[in-house]
Amino acid sequence: MAKHLEVEIKRLNKRILDIGDIVVEAIHKALTGLQDRDPNLAREVLDLDRRIDRAEVEVEEECLKVLALHQPVAEDLRFIAAVMKINNDLERMGDEAVNISEHAIFLGKSDPIPVPTRLHDMAVASMRMVKESLESFVNGDNQSARRICIEDDIVDEYNREVIDEVWKMMKSNPATIERGSHLFSVSRHLERIADHATNIAEDVVYMVEGKIIRHRAESYSHQKDSTS
Amino acid sequence: MAKHLEVEIKRLNKRILDIGDIVVEAIHKALTGLQDRDPNLAREVLDLDRRIDRAEVEVEEECLKVLALHQPVAEDLRFIAAVMKINNDLERMGDEAVNISEHAIFLGKSDPIPVPTRLHDMAVASMRMVKESLESFVNGDNQSARRICIEDDIVDEYNREVIDEVWKMMKSNPATIERGSHLFSVSRHLERIADHATNIAEDVVYMVEGKIIRHRAESYSHQKDSTS
Repeated sequence: MAKHLEVEIKRLNKRILDIGDIVVEAIHKALTGLQDRDPNLAREVLDLDRRIDRAEVEVEEECLKVLALHQPVAEDLRFIAAVMKINNDLERMGDEAVNISEHAIFLGKSDPIPVPTRLHDMAVASMRMVKESLESFVNGDNQSARRICIEDDIVDEYNREVIDEVWKMMKSNPATIERGSHLFSVSRHLERIADHATNIAEDVVYMVEGKIIRHRAESYSHQKDSTS
Repeated sequence: MAKHLEVEIKRLNKRILDIGDIVVEAIHKALTGLQDRDPNLAREVLDLDRRIDRAEVEVEEECLKVLALHQPVAEDLRFIAAVMKINNDLERMGDEAVNISEHAIFLGKSDPIPVPTRLHDMAVASMRMVKESLESFVNGDNQSARRICIEDDIVDEYNREVIDEVWKMMKSNPATIERGSHLFSVSRHLERIADHATNIAEDVVYMVEGKIIRHRAESYSHQKDSTS
């Protein structure tokens, strides 16, 4: 690999990890803001998202520059293609964290209702998936990446449990319907964050194995967004 | 532009338009299946989605081949980068159509509830946005693309109206809560389809103007997923 290209690839690796850290912080703050009914945290999530947005634009421009200047082939080309897609998924995770914050702000202004503990579990699992998917990316570890695709099923299961719990609350007390539907939304945004982490893991498998595992049901039992 | 590269670019243009046609058909069938309570249409959507998935994998592999073989620069490079992203958005739209069908199947088996007419309007607007965004892509028409970014606000407004209508139904008759939440989901999947069309339009603006308009609030008043 040409020296310059090697430097660029290291730099892009680092940038993706940095964005990942901000994304995890945003998810954490969004959920804490919901649980603690703290609107200041929601505002912090908005600031973090702006940083993610700026970083995404910069990384995309860097990728195009690398493609134009170094004209990478084979695995280097697959690496750049993966960075472009991962970058996009991270940016959308930031948007999902903002969406969660918006629901947190609404719920913080309303009479309190119980927040299902499974929402917390979903957030923890999603943050873990984001971290692990990015680690598998920088380490080129396709085995870990394949495990992450399976972890997504756990988040889907939690999502079903949240939906059941909130439905019961709504049915027993129709006054909670509006607030309950905000909890549904939070759950679905967390589920989408896990979906994006799964996309990243799939990109890692492709990058390492040169094989597209998306849409191949036999490779793992993940099915996108089937319950929401 | 080298002759071979020109041929490849024309071929990719055509393929993207073909996938777009299947996506529009899938959205149309998903909504008709919901309105007509017809599970056969849901199965057809699944078949269409499989075709979209296969086409996505092929287009991505073609893009990587073009990058490796022809090493395009400047506008050709931006074109290939745009194809890769648009391809991804189209694939996700197919997933959203499948999600709508799953809710349609559930609702088709349950006692009927009124389907808000605004859901139909959302589907029509989303399909129009998909078509227009792809037309703006093949024509390199950044002005149309900018208009599509604004159209997304209309879909968001329809989404709010659907939510209001369904909430009212749920409150006046708690027996409809579970079925109503499926309508919420349909609405949100349509909204996400419109978001993906907006992503495509943004990619067209970038491709034509070499300028990233995502995250730049001043360029248009679109805000992603703010109401769901």
